Amino acid sequence: MATTATASTAPRPVRPGTGRWVVPFTAGDAGRKDLLGGKGANLCEMTRIGLPVPPGFVITTEACRRFRAVGDVPAGLWDEVDAALADLEAVTGRRLGDPDAPLLLSVRSGAPFSMPGMMDTVLDLGATDATVPGLTRMADDAFAQDSTRRFTELFGRVVLGVPAARLDAVREEAVAAAGVPDERHLTAAQLGDVVARQRAVIAAHGGAFPDDPRAQLRAAVVAVFRSWDGARARAYRRVEGIDDDLGTAVNVQMMVFGNLDDRSATGVAFTRDPATGADAPYGDFLVGAQGEDVVAGTRHPEPLARMADVLPAQHAELLRHLATLERHSRDLCDVEFTVESGRLWMLQTRVGKRSAAAALRIATDMVAEGLIDRREALARVTPEQLEQLLHPRFGPDAPAPLVTGLAASPGAAVGRIALTAEDAVAIAADGTAVVLVRVETSPEDLEGMVASRGVLTSRGGLVSHAAVVARGFGIPAVCGAADLDVDEAAGTVTADGTVLRAGDTISIDGSTGHVVAGSVDLVVPDDDPRVAELLVWADEVRTLHVLANADTPDDARRALAAGAEGIGLCRTEHQFLGERLPLVRRVIMAATPEEEAAALVPLEDRQRADFTELLEVMDGRTVVVRLLDPPLHEFLPDVEELRVAQARGQLDAEGAALLEAAADLREHDPMLGVRGLRLGVLRPALYEAQVRALLTAASDRRAAGGDPRVEIMLPLVATAGELAWGVELIHRVAAEVAAATGGEVPYTTATMIETPRAALRARELAPLVDAFSFGTNDLTQLTFGFSRDDVSTSYVPTALAGGMLSRDPFLSVDPHGVARLVGIAVEEGRAAHPGLVTGVCGEHGGDPASIAVFHRLGLDHVSCSASRVEVARLAAARAALGVGGPDAGA
Amino acid sequence: MATTATASTAPRPVRPGTGRWVVPFTAGDAGRKDLLGGKGANLCEMTRIGLPVPPGFVITTEACRRFRAVGDVPAGLWDEVDAALADLEAVTGRRLGDPDAPLLLSVRSGAPFSMPGMMDTVLDLGATDATVPGLTRMADDAFAQDSTRRFTELFGRVVLGVPAARLDAVREEAVAAAGVPDERHLTAAQLGDVVARQRAVIAAHGGAFPDDPRAQLRAAVVAVFRSWDGARARAYRRVEGIDDDLGTAVNVQMMVFGNLDDRSATGVAFTRDPATGADAPYGDFLVGAQGEDVVAGTRHPEPLARMADVLPAQHAELLRHLATLERHSRDLCDVEFTVESGRLWMLQTRVGKRSAAAALRIATDMVAEGLIDRREALARVTPEQLEQLLHPRFGPDAPAPLVTGLAASPGAAVGRIALTAEDAVAIAADGTAVVLVRVETSPEDLEGMVASRGVLTSRGGLVSHAAVVARGFGIPAVCGAADLDVDEAAGTVTADGTVLRAGDTISIDGSTGHVVAGSVDLVVPDDDPRVAELLVWADEVRTLHVLANADTPDDARRALAAGAEGIGLCRTEHQFLGERLPLVRRVIMAATPEEEAAALVPLEDRQRADFTELLEVMDGRTVVVRLLDPPLHEFLPDVEELRVAQARGQLDAEGAALLEAAADLREHDPMLGVRGLRLGVLRPALYEAQVRALLTAASDRRAAGGDPRVEIMLPLVATAGELAWGVELIHRVAAEVAAATGGEVPYTTATMIETPRAALRARELAPLVDAFSFGTNDLTQLTFGFSRDDVSTSYVPTALAGGMLSRDPFLSVDPHGVARLVGIAVEEGRAAHPGLVTGVCGEHGGDPASIAVFHRLGLDHVSCSASRVEVARLAAARAALGVGGPDAGA
Repeated sequence: MATTATASTAPRPVRPGTGRWVVPFTAGDAGRKDLLGGKGANLCEMTRIGLPVPPGFVITTEACRRFRAVGDVPAGLWDEVDAALADLEAVTGRRLGDPDAPLLLSVRSGAPFSMPGMMDTVLDLGATDATVPGLTRMADDAFAQDSTRRFTELFGRVVLGVPAARLDAVREEAVAAAGVPDERHLTAAQLGDVVARQRAVIAAHGGAFPDDPRAQLRAAVVAVFRSWDGARARAYRRVEGIDDDLGTAVNVQMMVFGNLDDRSATGVAFTRDPATGADAPYGDFLVGAQGEDVVAGTRHPEPLARMADVLPAQHAELLRHLATLERHSRDLCDVEFTVESGRLWMLQTRVGKRSAAAALRIATDMVAEGLIDRREALARVTPEQLEQLLHPRFGPDAPAPLVTGLAASPGAAVGRIALTAEDAVAIAADGTAVVLVRVETSPEDLEGMVASRGVLTSRGGLVSHAAVVARGFGIPAVCGAADLDVDEAAGTVTADGTVLRAGDTISIDGSTGHVVAGSVDLVVPDDDPRVAELLVWADEVRTLHVLANADTPDDARRALAAGAEGIGLCRTEHQFLGERLPLVRRVIMAATPEEEAAALVPLEDRQRADFTELLEVMDGRTVVVRLLDPPLHEFLPDVEELRVAQARGQLDAEGAALLEAAADLREHDPMLGVRGLRLGVLRPALYEAQVRALLTAASDRRAAGGDPRVEIMLPLVATAGELAWGVELIHRVAAEVAAATGGEVPYTTATMIETPRAALRARELAPLVDAFSFGTNDLTQLTFGFSRDDVSTSYVPTALAGGMLSRDPFLSVDPHGVARLVGIAVEEGRAAHPGLVTGVCGEHGGDPASIAVFHRLGLDHVSCSASRVEVARLAAARAALGVGGPDAGA
Repeated sequence: MATTATASTAPRPVRPGTGRWVVPFTAGDAGRKDLLGGKGANLCEMTRIGLPVPPGFVITTEACRRFRAVGDVPAGLWDEVDAALADLEAVTGRRLGDPDAPLLLSVRSGAPFSMPGMMDTVLDLGATDATVPGLTRMADDAFAQDSTRRFTELFGRVVLGVPAARLDAVREEAVAAAGVPDERHLTAAQLGDVVARQRAVIAAHGGAFPDDPRAQLRAAVVAVFRSWDGARARAYRRVEGIDDDLGTAVNVQMMVFGNLDDRSATGVAFTRDPATGADAPYGDFLVGAQGEDVVAGTRHPEPLARMADVLPAQHAELLRHLATLERHSRDLCDVEFTVESGRLWMLQTRVGKRSAAAALRIATDMVAEGLIDRREALARVTPEQLEQLLHPRFGPDAPAPLVTGLAASPGAAVGRIALTAEDAVAIAADGTAVVLVRVETSPEDLEGMVASRGVLTSRGGLVSHAAVVARGFGIPAVCGAADLDVDEAAGTVTADGTVLRAGDTISIDGSTGHVVAGSVDLVVPDDDPRVAELLVWADEVRTLHVLANADTPDDARRALAAGAEGIGLCRTEHQFLGERLPLVRRVIMAATPEEEAAALVPLEDRQRADFTELLEVMDGRTVVVRLLDPPLHEFLPDVEELRVAQARGQLDAEGAALLEAAADLREHDPMLGVRGLRLGVLRPALYEAQVRALLTAASDRRAAGGDPRVEIMLPLVATAGELAWGVELIHRVAAEVAAATGGEVPYTTATMIETPRAALRARELAPLVDAFSFGTNDLTQLTFGFSRDDVSTSYVPTALAGGMLSRDPFLSVDPHGVARLVGIAVEEGRAAHPGLVTGVCGEHGGDPASIAVFHRLGLDHVSCSASRVEVARLAAARAALGVGGPDAGA
């Protein structure tokens, strides 16, 4: 038995004596999934360890690949199939097409990667009019006719391409005519009549139904090969990133019958509970039924435990086999089994799917049981599963979503709709739960966001303001729900004909993007100590450090609680908002350097207090502080609103002054405008004040016996000249602070690498600073030419659907373009400056697939929102173990 | 004699027998400018070819470099200087400091690159009280005292650092006290008194004036070394991109005196007329004067021809020497000469500066004379000079500019101010010359721009809409004149207190960026056939093809006239403007695919007619047509204007519908929004209509016996998936057109490389298309994160001034970041697709420095505005010759 993570998948030869295209179950093993497919390899492995598997053989993926390459089955295939069939007939004592002792076959696809339901299966192959006597002898006449009907329907549909509905119609007419509930109640004669009429439908459709069961087998094998390139299968592979060239194997196996008599049954079983992870077999079964009857859902199966009453010996045997399987595979397995007249057969096994809670429990339990080691446990719990265990989510009874937006900040929330930040604050004042619903958010909405349980926007992508801020504060958020019409003036939120009003209740799940009108019951994860245990193991394994993006002392405390090793990005923008906005406006609108200097004094004092508290919380840990980044005009009101007010005659003198300033600073493309260090170049006093505030705070902390570890970071650099200017400013102010405070103020410097040019000039930038921090949000915007706010909701969905994009590059870092720039900068930066520290502080820093890329590129750390720190710790460990990572793409 | 272009500058040893630090004029030659400096090398060369040069020696740049490295003169320098001085004394029969036959020295700097007036000179060195008798014997007592005064002033200022004003004051007081016009009228006694008082001033300033002339010489040499690192010299080198480490040589030479008697004179001469290029010596001279007297401007020199009357033998000798020099250097030379008591001395020579007209005439004449070959001629005329010869410009009497903006489109214009496109059209209707003055322009201003003689904007950079369109139409333009306040509502244009009104006359020079209130006389170049001759030579040499950006048949004709080999970029946006705007709006606002299809029909018909005419003009030549690129919202009115109108109650139902559509399509950052192929993905019918119109037009042309050569180009691609989609669309529509027209329609495909990602993924993109065309405007925007419209006027000027940027990257392509991406794409694209055609169609395609970069990167072609095609042809030839190119930078 193989597991996803530990079994070797290195090519090795199958045993001597097997043919080129066909491998009997007795000759293969679980190590050859590439050649035998997942199902076939596992059937071989079960056979190998002595479990009762109906005998059979695998036609290899190599045969399928040859079929795809030349459009025909490879020479020698049918000879090998005939030989394997002869062996099968010898073992079973039955013969294909034999009227007296007919062998019926199951012909099933089985690709190297699971593609559930995507390809075709033909069962009961060999059941024809000629074999009715022999089949009748096995049970009764009705069984014989029913087997023939099942085969006719499957062969007609799968091999001959007759629409299933036309064959189903024949059966349903017969059921209706007979006045019985379903076909199980038809008589043998009625079933024989159904078969005859289905054959007629097939003939009318132009299908040539071969009489020779060997011809049937060959046609079925070819049909399975063809189904690999069916539209559904191709679409599935594109989504899952599975290579089209792998091909599928075909498993040919003796049919066994759970519907033969009342000592027959069929069922599925898990070695442990896949929902809770509890260490007890779990499953269900149905007496007198075939597997497809269970799937059809016409009868309700019973819990596995009940089998102890009905078929006690077989139940006991099954439990033994399950224990053997799990011991052998060292993972949760599920099996399909059939009891045929008291004899138990294992039809299939694979690694069992499981819930997030079960994944965690099974992984940690198996470590405790000595079945697997800690590294293996880390491979068994995905970051997505961990995220489910950390945040509330919609319960299983949640109605279908009204709309689905982007899963922007994990967790679910229920609350009353507020359409403005002011309303959110007002409504939340008495503890009422609020969900803030906006077209998009801006820095002015900050207080309203903090007051809300959740945030919902109709516009903006995964790195929009709303998304970034919500993640920072740990507030669930759904963003860019484009089908939602938010009309602030009318006080309504409309989607798909449903009109919600401010004050109505709404529910959002920021882990799925679902939005539901009204209240949804949430599943709130309990505080499972296994989470902490797993993350400790992750910390032992990972080589990437995990820091947090945190702007305030509260953020910092949350980050520490989540296990962050420091602050990789403190955005000082937050220090300039809220009640301080008038102070900032005075700076921006200052007419002279003297006015500007005077206006900066109160701002600098307040920043110093902010930094002092932050450094106290993070004592002894790195705190990377980025100097002010956003465009100046963001601190001024919207020009358009002011002009509309002006047109209405509602603008006073102060408003007119604000309008003039805002219009002066307005830009066509603010993302490409006066941002980051460019702002500092135009307003150096602003940067000087920030550096002074920070280093004075550090000096204060040191004087108080603290251990402040400050790194000052310059944003949005494109040239070495810019960076040299910025670093010189920092050193100059630091010298002034040192002189003023009378002590040394240790600090380091960093630059963001956010422009492609900065990455391409790393060799020139690296010697100037101690660290690079990749701002992959901006780097993605510039590398693709994609605005995070505009294109995410307008173009990206269409491009993803049409295959022009293989992933949303704001969700997971583009492993080809953006990662190539990061790679260039890391390599050339380190060459020019050995010891250069490199990290990522964009939103990708919290994304598991991106973390795998950053690990591969050899970065020193990632820094992400506090709410993603735990996930990042696990993802970093898995990256170190070589588990997880992005798929390929355009 | 060296010329800038032909003399070898490869290091070779100076002749045997010279010392390490000092080279006598008799031992050097013009090949060692790096060691001897420009002036010293040329003095050696003149000596070598037998011209009468006052004897002397060069202290090498190597000595200066050692001085800079260790802070002191190298060991052995003074010994070598003493030895060279002894030789000089032997040759001249005079001795430094000798009371009877004193040798006076000129000590002049001379760097490897010309740095006029940037470093220091000491003349008359050795003239002290002790040498008065000997100097008196040469002329008279006054000459002796005056030489001593001159030396005292220069040594005091240059070597001892006494402010010149304080020394000048002494002399001026004496002149005033004596009641004479200037110091030439002072008596010997009065001059002796001036010297004494100047020595006192120097002593009071703390300057120790050595008595020993050898000590004076050493101090003067060190002062020249030091002047290399003076503030002026450093600033000059930074601007000119000269390496600080080169150092200067020092030329020590026997003084000769043009002020000795009335058979003495001094002057400057050119071998040809530097203003017109006429083949006759040109210059002026002054009897009884030293060179510095000419510079001081107190006396007016006479034309050189007059010297034939005054000093006929010396004049004839000078003409012989000029002829020898020019024959030897094969270029225009200028010289400084002195006649001392009837004996002619050549003091200095260098390659002469010349006007654009002279550069062209001299280069072509010298080819005709067999002095130089065509390649050398191409090296002698710069693209900037050629541009002056192609466009009108401000005359020499133009007043100082009111403001200076960016030189956005070459040529000068005078006209009446129109503040709106409508006014421009109305005023120009009767032939009145108009200059359109706007804050910035948009596609709606197109007609107004075309109607105007010139365009002036207060906002936007070199690749702003106004700049790009003006260059396309060959209209002079000054853009981004940030100090200009354009108030459309008030009807005024204000700058620096001057208020101009609509209808007032204004003059702009788009080659310099100058803006003048009122009318300026323009210099309109005559149609010199030498331009065409030179460009034919350029075409023989260049390997880069030069195509034109042309959108209309008129553009195409202009491009052909300028020598374009094809159309490298036809922007179809223009087909959607003007009277067609309502048609486009119908497409954009279509509610269903059917409405859209119907709305596209008339648009497609008109485009087909456009293409038919364009292909007729360009028959047999490549026409690269780019599918629609600008954002949809550009075709809709401004949201803000509509909202203001709405607030005023002035919006009708149609306006309201427009407002809704425009608001829906509005983006935060349109440059990063739904543009280029993204528009095609969202509105495929629009792209299909364009491809159909183009290929049907091509098919029509072919049916009519024409030879249409169409390439269809997809803009703004970031992924291979996008490009595959676009190419598939083209092939599909082409097959439809072929089926509909019954004939094959040959075409090729191209993609713009405008996003960093496209460049980084060239390996995946190249196999999908026939050609890459680099859109370096967008590539620059994205690589730097600079908006061309915003940052060019707000940040870039400050950054250039502060050294954060070494050039405006929209003017000349960034050779480090952007060019690196181009290089990656060319190399990897060709590796994946041998035969891939590569070109540039951004505005850099017309910039000489950028063309040098593109040549180096191995591109196949550049494509530029018709008005820059000639310049591009020359620049491409010079690039092939290895002449011209960008300097280094951050």
